[in-house]
Amino acid sequence: MLVLLDQTRLPAEEVELVCTDVPALVEAIRSLAVRGAPLLGIAGAYGVALAAVRGFDVAEAAELLAHARPTAVNLAYGVRRAADAYRAAVDEGASAERAAAVALAEARTLHREDARASAAMARHGLALLAELLPGGGYQVLTHCNTGALVSGGEGTALAVVGAAHRAGELRRLWVDETRPLLQGARLTAYEAARAGIAYTLLTDNAAGSLFAAGEVDAVLIGADRIAADGSVANKVGSYPLAVLARYHHVPFIVVAPSTTVDMATADGAAIEVEQRPGHEVTEVATPNAPAAGAEAGGGVPVAPLGTQAYNPAFDVTPPDLVTAIVTENGVVSPVTREGLAELCARPGPLPGPNGAVRP
Amino acid sequence: MLVLLDQTRLPAEEVELVCTDVPALVEAIRSLAVRGAPLLGIAGAYGVALAAVRGFDVAEAAELLAHARPTAVNLAYGVRRAADAYRAAVDEGASAERAAAVALAEARTLHREDARASAAMARHGLALLAELLPGGGYQVLTHCNTGALVSGGEGTALAVVGAAHRAGELRRLWVDETRPLLQGARLTAYEAARAGIAYTLLTDNAAGSLFAAGEVDAVLIGADRIAADGSVANKVGSYPLAVLARYHHVPFIVVAPSTTVDMATADGAAIEVEQRPGHEVTEVATPNAPAAGAEAGGGVPVAPLGTQAYNPAFDVTPPDLVTAIVTENGVVSPVTREGLAELCARPGPLPGPNGAVRP
Repeated sequence: MLVLLDQTRLPAEEVELVCTDVPALVEAIRSLAVRGAPLLGIAGAYGVALAAVRGFDVAEAAELLAHARPTAVNLAYGVRRAADAYRAAVDEGASAERAAAVALAEARTLHREDARASAAMARHGLALLAELLPGGGYQVLTHCNTGALVSGGEGTALAVVGAAHRAGELRRLWVDETRPLLQGARLTAYEAARAGIAYTLLTDNAAGSLFAAGEVDAVLIGADRIAADGSVANKVGSYPLAVLARYHHVPFIVVAPSTTVDMATADGAAIEVEQRPGHEVTEVATPNAPAAGAEAGGGVPVAPLGTQAYNPAFDVTPPDLVTAIVTENGVVSPVTREGLAELCARPGPLPGPNGAVRP
Repeated sequence: MLVLLDQTRLPAEEVELVCTDVPALVEAIRSLAVRGAPLLGIAGAYGVALAAVRGFDVAEAAELLAHARPTAVNLAYGVRRAADAYRAAVDEGASAERAAAVALAEARTLHREDARASAAMARHGLALLAELLPGGGYQVLTHCNTGALVSGGEGTALAVVGAAHRAGELRRLWVDETRPLLQGARLTAYEAARAGIAYTLLTDNAAGSLFAAGEVDAVLIGADRIAADGSVANKVGSYPLAVLARYHHVPFIVVAPSTTVDMATADGAAIEVEQRPGHEVTEVATPNAPAAGAEAGGGVPVAPLGTQAYNPAFDVTPPDLVTAIVTENGVVSPVTREGLAELCARPGPLPGPNGAVRP
């Protein structure tokens, strides 16, 4: 079985969610109980291992899991890693039990790799900030949640924020609440508070005022998929921040593991953006009454009955608005198709002789 | 006594709020039970009349009312109109009773003037849309609430939207939900539904995706104060829309009565922006549990306890991002200090021989 922290209940309650089969995990992914690009990859890999260990059809489970949500490419990647390892073992004549152990080992490897990638992104991101903002004392704006909750390590953008905090260079973390599901208010604020970071919450609407007042030195966000041309799909509201950042000459930095780059997606137009149910907008989800479930009526209604809503989960930022993409392999800036391809082909950080991370 | 519709209870309930004295009205204004620039002016004038009729100190009441909220200049304007009329009557030797009747008559005049201004703004705005968008079939994005709820007539930006709808030229009204207090979801959606307008609600975050997809032909918003240079203070989230509109070459149109222009405010930097309590962000106000009151704890908490929030009620859009300002006196475009001064000096729409509005 797979034990997950139910993110829809945070910060009010820390509730464990136990998945004993793949359909339960698929539902946890769809309802966003488990969410965030890197974690989706890890969960997908463990899901395949779970199916293998319990003797279910692994190919079918992999298919179900890979398509639970369409945008984050990490999910399909994690599923494929574990499923490929399982299939290779079977092809080599391993018993079902042995192949399941191989799939589980692969999921654990992916989990460890993600932790190492987090640490490497934090280092590269911190160096980039020092280069872009030599004055130090950064005021960083972030959107959605990209921390330890979604990672085997400290996350992506929030790992860089944490590193800046520990280096004594973070003056303020501005946290967008991130409607509709308030991952900023619920999750990033929760992680920032636990880490002792000086943070301030704002409605997504108020970011413009901060830029205008010169109170944002850099925007740091994660990514759910990066196309081959450097277009970045991330939580809805990221693109408006990129436009504001450009207008105010503020660096807009995307932090994501290289597995988020999908060379099979040519450009932004080719990225499928998940459209989520309207009730996430017409109702307000609260930690005690999550509206993220399958049924309308889970949250508190705020709009007239029958109101139609437009609710894309993500938006796409074109590469010319992205100052830099930070991966575990290094930084690409300016963001070009060639630079991105070169970076993804580069060998990643491997454990050194003492298990330390090597650049 | 003054009977108002309590806007914090919409759309769940239509509740009347009865104010029998000025402190109750001041509290209704602070809690946003009565809100919206034109309505604040009307309410301020009636408040002065209420004080006069009930024999309270009119100068003191006017002082209290004029400063109930700092940004919308219409409030101070309405208060001044009624207070000046009262004082002039007293100075001319009128009895207190007679002077109170004069103040009440002045409030009613202001109320009627606002209705006429609405109709004139609708005409001018419709003509401007026809000029800017000759193809017709407009997709209009709006923010916050600017309709009949805040006006003696049909409102400001929403009056133009209503006119476009009746002219058969409105394809879609995109309604920003407008965090933190959700005036778009609660009030604009309510008014659009009642008017039979084809509307779609979205989180403020999703507006960027609509612009990127070419689904916004024009942005129409109201204003709480317009400085002499044409800087526009309006509900927080307006400025990011102006930046997005500029980036996408979409007209950004401000609709407001000429009384919203404050020649005594030189520029955007001189506009005082009201900072509201953090609990409007850390808690979610719902129609049944409004968090707009004086005490934290009225809404549903969504962030960790102790979270600090940045909560400006308004933001300021510089004139170079505003395509046009539509008033009852006509349109200024491009927005310049001179053009605005000329427009405000122009005689407004007066009742014609049969009480009809004359251009």
